Amino acid sequence: MTAARSIIERILGSLGASGIVRTGAQRRADRLARLLRTLISERGEASGAALARQAVALYQGLDAPARSHFFQLLARDFSPDRELVLAAAKAYHRDPSPENLASLERVAEPARQEVFRRMNMAPGGTATLLDLRRHLLEEARGHPELTMVDHDLTHLLASWFNRGFLELRRIDWKTPAAILEKLIAYEAVHEIHGFPDLKRRLERDRRCFAFFHPALPDEPLIFVEVAFVNEMPSEVAPILALESVVGDPRRARCAVFYSITSCQPGLRGVSFGNFLIKQVAEDLRAELPNLKVFATLSPVPGLRAWAKKALHKSASAEPLRAKLVALADDSAAVPPPELREPLEGLAAWYLTREWSGGHAMDAVARFHLGNGARLERVDWGADATPRGRAQSFGLMVNYVYDLDQVERNHEEYMNKHRVVASAAVERLAKTVEPLFVDKPQLPAPTPAAER
Amino acid sequence: MTAARSIIERILGSLGASGIVRTGAQRRADRLARLLRTLISERGEASGAALARQAVALYQGLDAPARSHFFQLLARDFSPDRELVLAAAKAYHRDPSPENLASLERVAEPARQEVFRRMNMAPGGTATLLDLRRHLLEEARGHPELTMVDHDLTHLLASWFNRGFLELRRIDWKTPAAILEKLIAYEAVHEIHGFPDLKRRLERDRRCFAFFHPALPDEPLIFVEVAFVNEMPSEVAPILALESVVGDPRRARCAVFYSITSCQPGLRGVSFGNFLIKQVAEDLRAELPNLKVFATLSPVPGLRAWAKKALHKSASAEPLRAKLVALADDSAAVPPPELREPLEGLAAWYLTREWSGGHAMDAVARFHLGNGARLERVDWGADATPRGRAQSFGLMVNYVYDLDQVERNHEEYMNKHRVVASAAVERLAKTVEPLFVDKPQLPAPTPAAER
Amino acid sequence: MTAARSIIERILGSLGASGIVRTGAQRRADRLARLLRTLISERGEASGAALARQAVALYQGLDAPARSHFFQLLARDFSPDRELVLAAAKAYHRDPSPENLASLERVAEPARQEVFRRMNMAPGGTATLLDLRRHLLEEARGHPELTMVDHDLTHLLASWFNRGFLELRRIDWKTPAAILEKLIAYEAVHEIHGFPDLKRRLERDRRCFAFFHPALPDEPLIFVEVAFVNEMPSEVAPILALESVVGDPRRARCAVFYSITSCQPGLRGVSFGNFLIKQVAEDLRAELPNLKVFATLSPVPGLRAWAKKALHKSASAEPLRAKLVALADDSAAVPPPELREPLEGLAAWYLTREWSGGHAMDAVARFHLGNGARLERVDWGADATPRGRAQSFGLMVNYVYDLDQVERNHEEYMNKHRVVASAAVERLAKTVEPLFVDKPQLPAPTPAAER
Amino acid sequence: MTAARSIIERILGSLGASGIVRTGAQRRADRLARLLRTLISERGEASGAALARQAVALYQGLDAPARSHFFQLLARDFSPDRELVLAAAKAYHRDPSPENLASLERVAEPARQEVFRRMNMAPGGTATLLDLRRHLLEEARGHPELTMVDHDLTHLLASWFNRGFLELRRIDWKTPAAILEKLIAYEAVHEIHGFPDLKRRLERDRRCFAFFHPALPDEPLIFVEVAFVNEMPSEVAPILALESVVGDPRRARCAVFYSITSCQPGLRGVSFGNFLIKQVAEDLRAELPNLKVFATLSPVPGLRAWAKKALHKSASAEPLRAKLVALADDSAAVPPPELREPLEGLAAWYLTREWSGGHAMDAVARFHLGNGARLERVDWGADATPRGRAQSFGLMVNYVYDLDQVERNHEEYMNKHRVVASAAVERLAKTVEPLFVDKPQLPAPTPAAER
Repeated sequence: MTAARSIIERILGSLGASGIVRTGAQRRADRLARLLRTLISERGEASGAALARQAVALYQGLDAPARSHFFQLLARDFSPDRELVLAAAKAYHRDPSPENLASLERVAEPARQEVFRRMNMAPGGTATLLDLRRHLLEEARGHPELTMVDHDLTHLLASWFNRGFLELRRIDWKTPAAILEKLIAYEAVHEIHGFPDLKRRLERDRRCFAFFHPALPDEPLIFVEVAFVNEMPSEVAPILALESVVGDPRRARCAVFYSITSCQPGLRGVSFGNFLIKQVAEDLRAELPNLKVFATLSPVPGLRAWAKKALHKSASAEPLRAKLVALADDSAAVPPPELREPLEGLAAWYLTREWSGGHAMDAVARFHLGNGARLERVDWGADATPRGRAQSFGLMVNYVYDLDQVERNHEEYMNKHRVVASAAVERLAKTVEPLFVDKPQLPAPTPAAER
Repeated sequence: MTAARSIIERILGSLGASGIVRTGAQRRADRLARLLRTLISERGEASGAALARQAVALYQGLDAPARSHFFQLLARDFSPDRELVLAAAKAYHRDPSPENLASLERVAEPARQEVFRRMNMAPGGTATLLDLRRHLLEEARGHPELTMVDHDLTHLLASWFNRGFLELRRIDWKTPAAILEKLIAYEAVHEIHGFPDLKRRLERDRRCFAFFHPALPDEPLIFVEVAFVNEMPSEVAPILALESVVGDPRRARCAVFYSITSCQPGLRGVSFGNFLIKQVAEDLRAELPNLKVFATLSPVPGLRAWAKKALHKSASAEPLRAKLVALADDSAAVPPPELREPLEGLAAWYLTREWSGGHAMDAVARFHLGNGARLERVDWGADATPRGRAQSFGLMVNYVYDLDQVERNHEEYMNKHRVVASAAVERLAKTVEPLFVDKPQLPAPTPAAER
Repeated sequence: MTAARSIIERILGSLGASGIVRTGAQRRADRLARLLRTLISERGEASGAALARQAVALYQGLDAPARSHFFQLLARDFSPDRELVLAAAKAYHRDPSPENLASLERVAEPARQEVFRRMNMAPGGTATLLDLRRHLLEEARGHPELTMVDHDLTHLLASWFNRGFLELRRIDWKTPAAILEKLIAYEAVHEIHGFPDLKRRLERDRRCFAFFHPALPDEPLIFVEVAFVNEMPSEVAPILALESVVGDPRRARCAVFYSITSCQPGLRGVSFGNFLIKQVAEDLRAELPNLKVFATLSPVPGLRAWAKKALHKSASAEPLRAKLVALADDSAAVPPPELREPLEGLAAWYLTREWSGGHAMDAVARFHLGNGARLERVDWGADATPRGRAQSFGLMVNYVYDLDQVERNHEEYMNKHRVVASAAVERLAKTVEPLFVDKPQLPAPTPAAER
Repeated sequence: MTAARSIIERILGSLGASGIVRTGAQRRADRLARLLRTLISERGEASGAALARQAVALYQGLDAPARSHFFQLLARDFSPDRELVLAAAKAYHRDPSPENLASLERVAEPARQEVFRRMNMAPGGTATLLDLRRHLLEEARGHPELTMVDHDLTHLLASWFNRGFLELRRIDWKTPAAILEKLIAYEAVHEIHGFPDLKRRLERDRRCFAFFHPALPDEPLIFVEVAFVNEMPSEVAPILALESVVGDPRRARCAVFYSITSCQPGLRGVSFGNFLIKQVAEDLRAELPNLKVFATLSPVPGLRAWAKKALHKSASAEPLRAKLVALADDSAAVPPPELREPLEGLAAWYLTREWSGGHAMDAVARFHLGNGARLERVDWGADATPRGRAQSFGLMVNYVYDLDQVERNHEEYMNKHRVVASAAVERLAKTVEPLFVDKPQLPAPTPAAER
């Protein structure tokens, strides 16, 4: 378990070497690391919980420098031993017996994982590990060697926050204020301006659902906000309006997922959104049979940035190109009505034709298309805020979740690298084809290679 | 929702191409295995939950032969690839970089683990996996190759049933009948004869606590039964007596852990008992400050079998030996009062001096001593049932949990291979020393080697 | 407040008179009565709860003789003052002003009522009052003067146990054992033989519902047992059979209320059954739209006793009369098949034609007909137990609750003194008309007089 | 049941007389009154719940004029019949038998009470009755005849909201927002400025408790706010300060009840405050043994108004009198420091010497002294707001709840008409004696007369 040493030592210098004056931060980090080593070396569990409690308390007492040092120790001293790994791999290669496999698994799993499992045994352990990962992610930006610690923690968290362990709860005005307060703080898409604003979003023509984990009963992991409306909406302001009339959910035709927010930085990369949207859609369909359409009203965050680059590169001589380039270059410009059609076309093209690493280039598109949604409509002027114009010329789009089609759509998207879009969107995309005439219009997917 | 069908059928469609005549059981097992491969090969999670649901349903529909076949497939087809493992190990050996470590972990982890994680996403997934493991353990008896499947499932379950995720609940007469019924069914130490018997064990001078996991809210994992008494008990019958007078817990001096039962065969080897006993002892100490002694009244299941073997082997010419040999040879014999002292001595010797693989030889001793308990007293005639006589000449013992000493005791036991016992027990052990004069009395622990 | 003295003193003799040696029981009762007088004389409430606690404790400590004495004191010393009442009534007669009405109400309400309201303030007060009334009812049998105490307590309890304060709860196998145990103890119609028997009655083709009061959260007040079957049943044994196959409630056509039990003797005369049956029927109709018939399978407890008397009195010379007389005289006789039709006729006649005090003569009929049920069918051989034969020649009947008709049926029954029965039952009743030829067949209701 | 007619008709004029055109409001009120008559005339309960539901719906549909008319009908048509009352009273006077008493009670209880009991059976019935009473109280201001309706409803509500049926709940930040929102709306003493302000009042050095009734689970009836501080406070601002440091409740010596608010206008006159304060004090004493003082920081709402009147009337020639008169005449004046002592003296005098109808004159004093609290201290400048100055020259006082003394204090106050006050307060009162030299300093209580 002293592997990975050389590379890290190169980065750290001779951390902890004798003769070097150590700081208080180092000492505290070292102390915790020693405790953790004891924690995982105990064959029995006699003192497990007590030691775990101590470890958690020590960790929580670390200041930023001590924490940095501690993360380095986790990377350096709790990785698999190179020699043992090689020996076990050779043995398994020679004879893939259960014993050899067990040995391999034992030596190949970094001791960090057991560290984290043991820390989780303390009261508040799970919350502490999420906190640890949040700091780790920040620290890892400048310290790539920490990605291996993060890799192990993510592996564990993904296993622990398995969908089978999550609880879907409806959030309403009867929910404890301590939880509502967190929704207000976390909301990432359309800011919630205090409790009265939130209250409007919890009236009977709105819904809010969140996933919780039993070990964090007061902490929403992700939540989605839904509005019941008559028609698939083409702008967001009416949904957010505080003074709007409260409608009757039993008469609504359309459920709009107008906001979805991941709450825990410590769970970045552990994905629940797909499960949440589908579960909510299924539940609502069962409760309110009048609902016929489940759709989003979503931003297109990468549109203008892409358009700027792509239009500059374009060899097209179309006069339109110049106008669009001028608009794309100015993040504060108000999109003129006469450019509505080409801008909608650009959005359609961008979302259906532009890929990156086997996925749709746009982050939001990637999420919904990957979930099996269909790109349904481009909405001109849907988000008239400066941010909306800077991101996407004020355009938004609707993705539709047709529960009977999501698997097939997903299949198309994943395996054939084809975006399922409405005929209208397809038509829009075609209108801007001349602008990109030299460009291969479709990716040439070799699925095996991209996987 | 019928979309998933065609896709899955497409996946399953190319079954039986090999031209070999396969049984129905094989076909069903193969079909499930193929589905599982799809389940884990999905890059996104779009169809995850739906496929998981189907996988769980398919598994639940397997009969015994199909299940056997399926287990074989899990062992054969979901293990790490030997070549990939070797290559990754070599790369990591050459350069233990984060990337190489990540690769190593990815290829060394059997795909089975992801299979189980995905199955867990289905409603009822966790219960299904416990059921699967129960069958797997039975099947593995005759099929050692299945231990590698079990190894992976155990690894996951130990991680999921981490103490930090367990909920300690008090069981009393207000507990739902559906749960009480299970306690009656599961109780492994002192049979519960229906609800009225159980009711007596839940009166205010008794307590019962169980661990639950949030994914199995109605399934106790392990439970412990406690009696509040004035003195550390030397026989079990008064505790179990249905018609005994209900005492006042605020006046009791001693809490006796008189029964502890693991409920889930599917969790065999995932240990909670240590946590349960200590947590309960701590909670009771806080609630009832009058409690001064936390003790067990425990069987010594291996005593007679060991004594028989050891006495036969003994070279001692003591006349006592012959009498004891005669008694040990007859599992139905009633231990005569005149042999009380030597039999108590044998028990003390057996529990303090006999080791096996670095642990106390007796299974119950191993559990409590490993938890840091102290062997306090040998109780003559404590269990006068035929079973009690056959196991241990009717003797039982008390282990004491002194919360301020358990860590030190545990340390003694684990690191110095010394059983912490009362002076009385030590004296008893010495009385039979002449019988084992040729035998090395203490193990010569080389801790490093034994670890 | 010293009214009602003379009459009671006549009965009691000189209870409490000076110069007479008083017993310990008397002393304890007197002490409680004095405390109660203080309790209600406090103008403020400063010591209310403390005194109430004391009063409840004193009451609970009374033995039977002291309790008897105490009840007498409640009757004697806590009644309205005759002079004050008369004066207030005269003032109100002269001028029915708000002030005079308030005075009247104040002096006409027995001080006992305030006593009970104050006792209710103590923890466990409500339960104590129910217990008090249970004893009071027993005591009142030989002491008619106590009916005035009972009248006041009943008045209060009826107000407190108002339907608006009751909670309807479904009882199932997840219900705490402490409550299930009470159902087993209380069941008055078809004995429940322990937990396994009860469990069968809580499977998914059965239902059990109870009313609870928030002040007695663990005490069912009344419960009803329902079975889902395909046809309106004509015998009770199949419903009670422990080993019967569990059916699918979503396919059942008929919900049978096969047992309804009032649990609290202290609430005798405070009626919930009507509310319970209708609420349950409404809820089940909403949950299981397949249910078309809501019926009972009910005993006819007064049939044979009535028949015996009526047939003896009858002047009819029909040869049938003699046979029926012979059968009615023998409570152990097995009703012969050839008498099936006349016996069914007798039951139909009895239930539809025999009235007493403006109500159906039969107690069970009174309940269901008063609730607005329809008498649907007479079931030959439905209850073949000795008790069934002794009560009603083994006959039972079905009452049907047609929720859209109950108000109209009730109206018929209450105002027109007409039993709503099926055509078949009407036909049966006519067949025995010759036996009662001299008897007025229908009551001549003068509703005003009977009210 | 047509009593009380003449007097009301005198007031109402010829309401409902034939030949008069009736308004729509009258018609709707009449319709409801007829329905209620049916509701209570039903001998059985067959249609009870249905009719009750209808009655509640009809009531809720009444507009203000119809409601006024309906209240008049409740007063006119649902009072006891004069003749029946007189006859029953005479019979009871002649022979106070149980039967005659039962008759008396039956005819003397206004039919309104049964009306309200029946309305309560409908879902939402209790809330409707509270709403009805709220309107009734408003209406009764100009219509004294309605006090008899109010008298009956109050009688019922006092019985239904008996302490024994109330639930004490702690309010904290985990309480549903829907309830917290109501606290913000209801708070009557120190306004709560939105959720963040409330949150500070729910931190761990603050407490909030409320009584709830099971029929209104989301409606606080009364709530009290408590602060844990080191010393009995002499001003309120530090307690309310939003940004104050959160203290450790385990170290506080004093629990201050700094705000107590009755929430339900419909329950005016039904008193819970006494029970609430004592229960909370008892519970806190058990939980936090460090708490030695339970005190209030209370306004003296009637001080200046009384002082103005009393000083004007005073015959004293003290020069001080003129200064005080000038100050008392000006509600906006800032009390000058040199008048501190005489003003404190006035407050002490007012609270200890001024009685009205057997009670302390000051409303807040009446409440706390009636509960058995001790007047402990006068706090100069405790409430520097304009309102505080206008009411009481900016003075506040502390009442102390000494749980072991409250009964004795209460006794003193109720029976001896003596205010229990600290020596300091007594001294203060004496300092102003010269101002009231002609005035009898102590009431000469003839309790019987005052009762």
